[in-house]
Amino acid sequence: MSTYNENLNWRYATKKFDATKKVSDQDIETLKEAIQLSASSYGLQPYKVLVISDPEIKEKLKPAAWNQPQITDASHIVIFANINNFGEVDIDHYIKNVSETRGLELEALQGYSDLMKNSINPLPEDSRNAWTAKQTYIALGNLLSAAADLKIDTCPMEGFDAAQLAEILGLNEKNLTPSVIATIGYRSEEDETQHYKKVRKPKDELFITL
Amino acid sequence: MSTYNENLNWRYATKKFDATKKVSDQDIETLKEAIQLSASSYGLQPYKVLVISDPEIKEKLKPAAWNQPQITDASHIVIFANINNFGEVDIDHYIKNVSETRGLELEALQGYSDLMKNSINPLPEDSRNAWTAKQTYIALGNLLSAAADLKIDTCPMEGFDAAQLAEILGLNEKNLTPSVIATIGYRSEEDETQHYKKVRKPKDELFITL
Repeated sequence: MSTYNENLNWRYATKKFDATKKVSDQDIETLKEAIQLSASSYGLQPYKVLVISDPEIKEKLKPAAWNQPQITDASHIVIFANINNFGEVDIDHYIKNVSETRGLELEALQGYSDLMKNSINPLPEDSRNAWTAKQTYIALGNLLSAAADLKIDTCPMEGFDAAQLAEILGLNEKNLTPSVIATIGYRSEEDETQHYKKVRKPKDELFITL
Repeated sequence: MSTYNENLNWRYATKKFDATKKVSDQDIETLKEAIQLSASSYGLQPYKVLVISDPEIKEKLKPAAWNQPQITDASHIVIFANINNFGEVDIDHYIKNVSETRGLELEALQGYSDLMKNSINPLPEDSRNAWTAKQTYIALGNLLSAAADLKIDTCPMEGFDAAQLAEILGLNEKNLTPSVIATIGYRSEEDETQHYKKVRKPKDELFITL
């Protein structure tokens, strides 16, 4: 098994974190860099990512996540929040970044800009939000693997009230919707689930080879 | 920069593959293993993954993917297809796997089974499909990183006609919907885009730290 896959095999959805252990600032920066480097549709990164370590804020968020203990026990909470009704203004902003990063005239990027706008403009708001939410899951998958590479534990979480979370964090005013959460930290020795055998579909059930 | 992040930095959405270079069977198995080990909601893996190297099938699929050359030039096409209207039968199947893998009585898993069913049953079909589709993006993110670890190139693709693709591959009868594609192989030396500077949102724009 490759080292990469050994890390995937090592990781599991941590149910109980050791609340005394904190992820170092340096490791947080490495994880943020991995998120930043994640692929996304057209490279648009149509989301923002909240990284929360403040104990008071974590405590406030807990009821919005069904009081799951990971929210307060984990060292950090990472909340992926997709941009609502992503559209022309966001694409123009991205094109400006492409122009500056690559030293290209805006005019040279007009075709690319039009291509994206023509693809996104016809989408109704709910499809648009579903599409931006999906992009956060690429970054989530990448974060889980990047953390495992550093032997940092994670628990991805969909069990939360997005409206309540947005309200607490003032995300509505920021035009953001919480899409998915990862709590990160170090597993508690007491977490029995770390000893459970990993359950996966066998390859012949999961894959169709043509 | 960590080796993991260096690999992410190395990768890019490959626009032109070297059609003469094939990914080895051994590497394909490693990538399949990475997909298999990907996290998913409750561990349900509500999807199947098609791995296609047959040149005739690739040729047939090309028009359904806007004739993008990656479809035929890449060594393999990986199509993530979420299970339609995922529900009780699928959960029972999963619980059976948990029971067998961990040597637990089905009765001991009744509570866990009910928890999942109670969470999924109220979802209307479109929300259910959006939820299973999102899970494929975790696996996609993981595949991109796992491939980069092996210095295998990838191009994630959302530009395709899902209905047409399903028709060609007989996925409707299998109760599957194509969600997202990754073409994998080796970059052509002629692909100019490999030299483009990577465009990413700066950290202070992408992250909110609390």
